[in-house]
Amino acid sequence: MTSEQDVATLTRRVEELLEGNTVKEAVELVSGIHPADQADLFVRLDPDMRQAFLALLSSEGQAHLLEHLDEDTRWDVIEKMPRAALARVLDRMDNDEAADVLRDLPPSEAARVLANMNTAFEVAPLLEHAEESAGGLMTRGYVALHKAMTAAEAVIYLRVRKPFAEEAYYLYVLDPANRLEGVVNLRELIVADPDTPIEQIMAREIISVAPGMDQEESARLLQHYRLRALPVVDESRNLLGIITADDLMEVLTEEATEDMYRMAGVGVKEWAFSPLRDSVARRIPWLSFNMVWAFAAAAVINLFEGTIDKIATVAIFMPMIAGQAGNAGIQTATIVVRSMALGEVEVGDVGKLLAKEWAMGAIKGVLFGLALGLIAWTWKGNAVLGIVAGLALFLNMLVAATGGVLVPMTLRRIGFDPATIAGVFDTMLTDFMGFLIYLGLATLLVSQLT
Amino acid sequence: MTSEQDVATLTRRVEELLEGNTVKEAVELVSGIHPADQADLFVRLDPDMRQAFLALLSSEGQAHLLEHLDEDTRWDVIEKMPRAALARVLDRMDNDEAADVLRDLPPSEAARVLANMNTAFEVAPLLEHAEESAGGLMTRGYVALHKAMTAAEAVIYLRVRKPFAEEAYYLYVLDPANRLEGVVNLRELIVADPDTPIEQIMAREIISVAPGMDQEESARLLQHYRLRALPVVDESRNLLGIITADDLMEVLTEEATEDMYRMAGVGVKEWAFSPLRDSVARRIPWLSFNMVWAFAAAAVINLFEGTIDKIATVAIFMPMIAGQAGNAGIQTATIVVRSMALGEVEVGDVGKLLAKEWAMGAIKGVLFGLALGLIAWTWKGNAVLGIVAGLALFLNMLVAATGGVLVPMTLRRIGFDPATIAGVFDTMLTDFMGFLIYLGLATLLVSQLT
Repeated sequence: MTSEQDVATLTRRVEELLEGNTVKEAVELVSGIHPADQADLFVRLDPDMRQAFLALLSSEGQAHLLEHLDEDTRWDVIEKMPRAALARVLDRMDNDEAADVLRDLPPSEAARVLANMNTAFEVAPLLEHAEESAGGLMTRGYVALHKAMTAAEAVIYLRVRKPFAEEAYYLYVLDPANRLEGVVNLRELIVADPDTPIEQIMAREIISVAPGMDQEESARLLQHYRLRALPVVDESRNLLGIITADDLMEVLTEEATEDMYRMAGVGVKEWAFSPLRDSVARRIPWLSFNMVWAFAAAAVINLFEGTIDKIATVAIFMPMIAGQAGNAGIQTATIVVRSMALGEVEVGDVGKLLAKEWAMGAIKGVLFGLALGLIAWTWKGNAVLGIVAGLALFLNMLVAATGGVLVPMTLRRIGFDPATIAGVFDTMLTDFMGFLIYLGLATLLVSQLT
Repeated sequence: MTSEQDVATLTRRVEELLEGNTVKEAVELVSGIHPADQADLFVRLDPDMRQAFLALLSSEGQAHLLEHLDEDTRWDVIEKMPRAALARVLDRMDNDEAADVLRDLPPSEAARVLANMNTAFEVAPLLEHAEESAGGLMTRGYVALHKAMTAAEAVIYLRVRKPFAEEAYYLYVLDPANRLEGVVNLRELIVADPDTPIEQIMAREIISVAPGMDQEESARLLQHYRLRALPVVDESRNLLGIITADDLMEVLTEEATEDMYRMAGVGVKEWAFSPLRDSVARRIPWLSFNMVWAFAAAAVINLFEGTIDKIATVAIFMPMIAGQAGNAGIQTATIVVRSMALGEVEVGDVGKLLAKEWAMGAIKGVLFGLALGLIAWTWKGNAVLGIVAGLALFLNMLVAATGGVLVPMTLRRIGFDPATIAGVFDTMLTDFMGFLIYLGLATLLVSQLT
């Protein structure tokens, strides 16, 4: 990634050239830029100039640029592109990316574009699969070999077939019925004696996925076994396509961002400079939900207004009892959510996890409960206030541990993403229960507190 | 990744075989398991049986197992291994992983092990670099070609040289002084006419990193340009080593976890079943820090105890004003932290970001301030209380937006990780300021509230 400043300078230079109508120089400049950097530049271009910029690129150049653009900008470009030109560009994109574009078009339009594409035969079958599944990520452009070929013959076949770079790393051996029998990597093909039949160098134990497998699980599988590509096969082991590591690497980064955003109640597609309208639409609903809950906590305090009226001092420790336990709960929830995302914890581990987090909660509770109790006692000169505050914090720490484990695990069990509001739900729980326990105890012992 | 159940069953089966002294069957069973799954099994084994399990594996098998183990378990194994055996195992590991192991040993021991290694010449130079830098991730086992070779000659050279699979994807062309001149990928070598000189097929524009570059930045570079490996070069463009994509993919996942954990104040190396002792050591310090701050917030409430004593009702809305703004601040901080981690936002963007988040804060403030004000008014029948509560929430939303932007950006500027306690620091800020603004306003208008 070129630095921010470089991109800004380059963008200005391109804009100057486009305004000056010095097309030849503009083409020269632009064609020397890596498509990944072209994409960074493109989003910074004055929207009026984007069409002019696209005109500088060949169909292939446009295809590479589109592969690197974010979804929103890509959609902007595609909407304005004549349908015949779009078909030419899609022909030059990776199958799986072309399928992503077609999925976003209205079905009748997608069919019309597809009809004009030379790679329609490869791309159309991909459209059956959901975008976020293994099937939706795969490309059909794999290289298939026959097991009776020799290594030297396979090399000659590759020389004729000229596969794309990312599709050439693994070569798949299929039987006559198109079933996956083995896999050879390019390096093994080169290293082997030229006369060796493929059958003798291929690996027969192949790690593969079904087309319906979730993209995050596929990514974890690839990472677990440190592979460069995963074959996608159906129930009869027919090879449907392959997913390359670079696509799955992106999935891992995206899913990590989504987990963080879900924990904090932020829209998963938001980024720092999302338009204000989008940010409002994505953040307000969750805050509204939180507000409703906050009134429940307020109602608890309201219930004990009489106690606060008698001893205003009680109010001083309310936020601490709720907040300290709330933070402890977020610690627990964060670890549980992330460990589930990394596949280290399953729903069945709930008992083991609860045992550990209760122990942690008890330790946190004793430590901070004692500290709060002693400070409250010495500060306000009332031992009973110290006991009430300390005990309430201790108990609320156990509530926090329970919520931190059960909220994400329950969300997972009922089919939601465990990160969904897990952290914040725990805060609401510790607010509500914290006030109830603390003010309840204070009310019971109100005669000792005055 | 084999499912949890499969691993559990397999573990029991291995334990039975080891107890029954049926070594031959145990070797057969174990050698059929992928090293990544062996690692999952190994951590579940009864500690007494781990030595017996290791004895089933060849040096090469042990090397592969170690590459897949988590750091703590790996360290356990290495500590107990005789030094001569360790040298043989390290010879069979990837250079960069072998260097990681040696870095963890006391220097005198590392030197002794290194003296027994055949790959000492390749591994020793890696020890100069910090573990979390590009230099610390690189391997020396790259394949170097000369530009005057033909494609066919290069293939013959590869056949003799037999590089590891992950090191064979890109082939590097060096000049006589070992400076990086070009790069060819294996696929291009195959596809080219056999008589073409390497010079004609190599790419001259090479994306490379310096050995001191941070591992996360290196990972983002690799992802940005969708590469399989990154060459590491010094100032004079000498090729020092290469970093392969699988190592950087792991970095991305780890860094995402670390960001989440830092936001929540959890130790970065913790996972769900970390020993209780470790969890205590990693979570308590941060909660203690939070506790000190919570007393600052308590002191603010204490300052206004007289007001609460006069109108206990005021206490009911305290947690809502602090909490609702706190959550809004966490939304902002999360987006800022993650956008910085993904390289979408730089320190220089602070003005632009503040403008956006202040606008968001104002919108959140007007919406929720109005809602709270109206509800407080109708619930408690006091219009002034409604105005005080609503206005306080509005102002605290602006505090939250400011903190959400400035806290992570300041942390980055002074050289800390922006995720460090960013979320929670914001909560402390909104607690403190929320109580100050709300109770301050209530005290000013106390005559109107009774």
